Amino acid sequence: MNTFGRNLTLTTFGESHGPAVGGVLDGFPPGFAIDFDAVAAEMSRRRPGASPAVSARNEKDRVEFLSGFSPDGVTLGTPIAFMIRNTDARSGDYDRLKGVYRPNHADLTYEMKYGIRDHRGGGRASARETASWVAAGALARQWLSSIGITVRAVLSGAGPVADDGIMRRLAEMSSECRLSVSEQLSDEMMREVLAAKKRGDSIGGKVTCLVTGIPAGVGDPVFDKLQSRLAAAMTGINAVKGFEYGLGFAAASACGSETADRLTAISGGHAVTATNFSGGIQGGISNGMPVFFSVAFKPTPTLMMPMQSLDRSGRPVTIEPAGRHDPCVAVRGVPVVEAMAALTVADLML
Amino acid sequence: MNTFGRNLTLTTFGESHGPAVGGVLDGFPPGFAIDFDAVAAEMSRRRPGASPAVSARNEKDRVEFLSGFSPDGVTLGTPIAFMIRNTDARSGDYDRLKGVYRPNHADLTYEMKYGIRDHRGGGRASARETASWVAAGALARQWLSSIGITVRAVLSGAGPVADDGIMRRLAEMSSECRLSVSEQLSDEMMREVLAAKKRGDSIGGKVTCLVTGIPAGVGDPVFDKLQSRLAAAMTGINAVKGFEYGLGFAAASACGSETADRLTAISGGHAVTATNFSGGIQGGISNGMPVFFSVAFKPTPTLMMPMQSLDRSGRPVTIEPAGRHDPCVAVRGVPVVEAMAALTVADLML
Amino acid sequence: MNTFGRNLTLTTFGESHGPAVGGVLDGFPPGFAIDFDAVAAEMSRRRPGASPAVSARNEKDRVEFLSGFSPDGVTLGTPIAFMIRNTDARSGDYDRLKGVYRPNHADLTYEMKYGIRDHRGGGRASARETASWVAAGALARQWLSSIGITVRAVLSGAGPVADDGIMRRLAEMSSECRLSVSEQLSDEMMREVLAAKKRGDSIGGKVTCLVTGIPAGVGDPVFDKLQSRLAAAMTGINAVKGFEYGLGFAAASACGSETADRLTAISGGHAVTATNFSGGIQGGISNGMPVFFSVAFKPTPTLMMPMQSLDRSGRPVTIEPAGRHDPCVAVRGVPVVEAMAALTVADLML
Amino acid sequence: MNTFGRNLTLTTFGESHGPAVGGVLDGFPPGFAIDFDAVAAEMSRRRPGASPAVSARNEKDRVEFLSGFSPDGVTLGTPIAFMIRNTDARSGDYDRLKGVYRPNHADLTYEMKYGIRDHRGGGRASARETASWVAAGALARQWLSSIGITVRAVLSGAGPVADDGIMRRLAEMSSECRLSVSEQLSDEMMREVLAAKKRGDSIGGKVTCLVTGIPAGVGDPVFDKLQSRLAAAMTGINAVKGFEYGLGFAAASACGSETADRLTAISGGHAVTATNFSGGIQGGISNGMPVFFSVAFKPTPTLMMPMQSLDRSGRPVTIEPAGRHDPCVAVRGVPVVEAMAALTVADLML
Repeated sequence: MNTFGRNLTLTTFGESHGPAVGGVLDGFPPGFAIDFDAVAAEMSRRRPGASPAVSARNEKDRVEFLSGFSPDGVTLGTPIAFMIRNTDARSGDYDRLKGVYRPNHADLTYEMKYGIRDHRGGGRASARETASWVAAGALARQWLSSIGITVRAVLSGAGPVADDGIMRRLAEMSSECRLSVSEQLSDEMMREVLAAKKRGDSIGGKVTCLVTGIPAGVGDPVFDKLQSRLAAAMTGINAVKGFEYGLGFAAASACGSETADRLTAISGGHAVTATNFSGGIQGGISNGMPVFFSVAFKPTPTLMMPMQSLDRSGRPVTIEPAGRHDPCVAVRGVPVVEAMAALTVADLML
Repeated sequence: MNTFGRNLTLTTFGESHGPAVGGVLDGFPPGFAIDFDAVAAEMSRRRPGASPAVSARNEKDRVEFLSGFSPDGVTLGTPIAFMIRNTDARSGDYDRLKGVYRPNHADLTYEMKYGIRDHRGGGRASARETASWVAAGALARQWLSSIGITVRAVLSGAGPVADDGIMRRLAEMSSECRLSVSEQLSDEMMREVLAAKKRGDSIGGKVTCLVTGIPAGVGDPVFDKLQSRLAAAMTGINAVKGFEYGLGFAAASACGSETADRLTAISGGHAVTATNFSGGIQGGISNGMPVFFSVAFKPTPTLMMPMQSLDRSGRPVTIEPAGRHDPCVAVRGVPVVEAMAALTVADLML
Repeated sequence: MNTFGRNLTLTTFGESHGPAVGGVLDGFPPGFAIDFDAVAAEMSRRRPGASPAVSARNEKDRVEFLSGFSPDGVTLGTPIAFMIRNTDARSGDYDRLKGVYRPNHADLTYEMKYGIRDHRGGGRASARETASWVAAGALARQWLSSIGITVRAVLSGAGPVADDGIMRRLAEMSSECRLSVSEQLSDEMMREVLAAKKRGDSIGGKVTCLVTGIPAGVGDPVFDKLQSRLAAAMTGINAVKGFEYGLGFAAASACGSETADRLTAISGGHAVTATNFSGGIQGGISNGMPVFFSVAFKPTPTLMMPMQSLDRSGRPVTIEPAGRHDPCVAVRGVPVVEAMAALTVADLML
Repeated sequence: MNTFGRNLTLTTFGESHGPAVGGVLDGFPPGFAIDFDAVAAEMSRRRPGASPAVSARNEKDRVEFLSGFSPDGVTLGTPIAFMIRNTDARSGDYDRLKGVYRPNHADLTYEMKYGIRDHRGGGRASARETASWVAAGALARQWLSSIGITVRAVLSGAGPVADDGIMRRLAEMSSECRLSVSEQLSDEMMREVLAAKKRGDSIGGKVTCLVTGIPAGVGDPVFDKLQSRLAAAMTGINAVKGFEYGLGFAAASACGSETADRLTAISGGHAVTATNFSGGIQGGISNGMPVFFSVAFKPTPTLMMPMQSLDRSGRPVTIEPAGRHDPCVAVRGVPVVEAMAALTVADLML
């Protein structure tokens, strides 16, 4: 339930306002020297308070490793346990939420499922959980990088502003096929995020991710297809409502005669195709071409405006704004998407 | 790899042109009297040749059950094995494809992964596999139905024609909130399919599915969320390129203040909300509201026109049209989506 | 539940008196040409009626393969499904057992667990199930053999007659270290079995198994140790009550100074030790020395004499002898032990 | 690999001389108030240095819980993470062992498998690992106790002294059927342990465990039988070489007519039998009678006398005694057997 993966497994733990969050990463290859500074750098990309565009919660997010390394920082092939103490969890902010269900949060569903919940900030359902994912993902990315696989994501949409052509550019491998969003669009997105913040509202967003260097043959038919694993990982990220790869939802209105990827060469054990509408996957197995996908994030449900809901006894309550909020969770979603993609691909490679 | 689910597991087997396809369904509740006629009816919905809009392959698709039932057709709680003999597999059609990689098929990726493949019609990658899914899904649906859960899907897009408002209607639970597509749109879709067939081309499509009656509390944080399980199941269906639930991809451009589902009552252990942009899932756990989602199917890569590709030695070949083809695989995808949704939900309920 | 293994998985199905028993073997290496005659030969070793020392049930036990092979009998790397029709299942023999619980059988526990059971001969709990294990194990043994691993078992005890020194000989690798029981002891065991048969009684037995050629490094700490996997597999065999490896139960009364295996060389990536009290496993990981273990079988509970029990309403009943019975199930246990050992080792090697 | 169980999973981490050992226990029922003092009491039963009969390593073994509890110590149903800092790990003791393989230890097999190992005291292969098992097992036992299931083990053999009748007494449910060893035998065992300690030698031992209160229906045919799960758990304990339940190895020489457990009543949904040679399990499923089993521990391979071995370059070395040693690891094995039995049964109950 709280374990991700098969061969490289990440088991996470921790409530957002408990003593710590963290995880156990099992199956990591032995003999690998980790760059701990690079891990810390990943953590700060995800950290709240890192930019005006994200939640103000200020945490150092220092990752403490508890096992799995030789004295000189080389992996032993044994489980890598790590934890991140919760240092800036102002539980007091949440006392008034005891017995109240915030709209569109998991407050009610957790209580329905378990009969009990940690009302202090979302517990396991908090985006705080993704700190553990990014820490583990940072290790996975370092290993992937050592075998020539890169994972990179960008913000491709924020509220009404979006780079609508990004998937098609990747599929057609046109001159702009590198994963990039124009500076102008990026600036417009940031303006949208800050405007939403100012209004106390939130907006949705989109993240597009490109994985290069995956060799042919990754992914297992028929129920463990590469895209199934990616889809499960991505839709498991807090606030994600959709996943598409290759031609994506545009496939529904396309013609076969225009979107067949013509095979032009077989080189070094992988396919070369004229276009990549397949998104690098055929029959659930990678063909050696780049893999790319997009995910849609919903607007965060915590708003800086009064909201109507119910309390435990079913009486209407008005929840006054307080605490901190993320105007566009997709901004912090970028490193989280990268982390989960890295863990997914590494799991399938091992 | 070929096993789906945790508590209700389906392990499938069979190449499209081997002796049989089939599966073992393990974990089905004991003491349940199966309606075998209803299973046969599901099979004929998926069957090729059932309508002019689908492939002409004619198979009786009779499901033979090998185990798991008492002499009078009641489940024993033991594995239910079944098989469907391949009776109309004209392997001869495929001989000329030996050593040739059809564009956008899994021919090449299977060979890259396993070093060998069954060239006769796609082997495991053939849509023939979904016959086993529909058979098992039919059993799951009967059981779900006995506990008040219904699973139903419709074709909501075919090439350029689509019911663009279907997800929003479901989210807003407006008067048309029943899962339905207008007769006019349905007719237009069918015309598009037949036109594509006439051209020898194929078109993509979209299927939208509604699941009602799921009690609150289904789905396991944090890596086994209800939507993750659905996303993995749906993107594992042949030709599916995208999955969205609730607000879906429209979430990316939405505002939080307009899409928060206000809680209006807690009744009978589940939530009642004014709208259902959440798609019945919060924090990965069902809240008791209806669950709905859409999937995008790409155009089938088999066309009735000459196609350029390569053979095993890397030489260009022209593949002449032959055999049969599905002008819009989404049409037959409807019962497959239902089957996989039923298996997913039943798995999580058990 | 009905699936064995992780990388090479066997999912079995079938009631002893239903249409068929069989299984799906998933994860078998592609490109391997199977010797189907050798599979048939393994099946006849296990078959009832093969010798006067075993049950008289006469079944041809022909294995029909349904998938996983190219037209010329080479594995495709896809699931290998097979079934064995139940041809000599005289259900009539069992009608009088409806509503009656045979002592020491699983009749009552199945009914307690599932609320229903197939009263005709034990259903899933019948030793008929092991036919599927032997079929799958035969494939695993062929593959293991191709990489230099051999699995062989012998009957080392039958009732009061036992080869008490067999484990120590294997541990000390003395001149008789080959897995063998003297002809005299073997004859005495057979005499005990036939005497038990004549009395209508049954006796227990012991099977000892030797696996050679396992490379160093097989087995995963800490919960997937090689011996844990073997122990689970062996104690899962019908009628097995104990498992020991290496020094075994004799370890409890031994001294460390006399049973430490002195390392004498490291050769070709594996250990060479002066003795092998470890049974080839240290810390749950193979060291390259032979692996050996013994299992104890209880006397079969079906006797050819009247037995007291209860019926479904709790009333005492006398069950008159009928049908067939195995005077010493350990005799047929020899190929079953080999099959399960082969599946376990192959699973860990893949 | 480092995860135990299916529904209640324990994922452990930690090298004996790294920063900490610990685990994540996932699937524990929500709403349960833990007695943390009782957990600490269990820890001290296992702790080295607790009695003259065990290793002198002195560790406080304080369990720090990191997640899974409400502020007032009630379980949330979320993962319970805990760690135990390694405070008395005198790594210096082990420096001279760098590049040397201790006989009968996992030093060599770990290095063969991973190409690297933590030479400081055994790493993951150290019995230090069992501290995490006892901590998690203590939680499982508390929950089992709340539903009427008790798990208790005793030392039933130490070197040449053993209670040979203990399994038969449990099977016959005679007046001494409570799990107990006479005071005289216990004293003799302790004398054997201390004598071995004085000689610098080690002796093996046996632990017998009784589980009462398991309802009928626990255990899943055919590959997840209750005894298979227990056997895997027990043989995974450091130094265990054998497992037997019910009639055990005595079954091999027994007659069916003397060991059939006659059914005398069906009461409260479970069986009552005149004897319990089945050990409470039939067909892999509990029948409601007590479950009992024995495990054999080998003598610990660390002796207080010079030992011959090889170093990394294959040269003979004499390893001088140093550090600490356990004259009879079965003594500390008693709470470990209880912990693993509790985790196994709780896993199957959930």
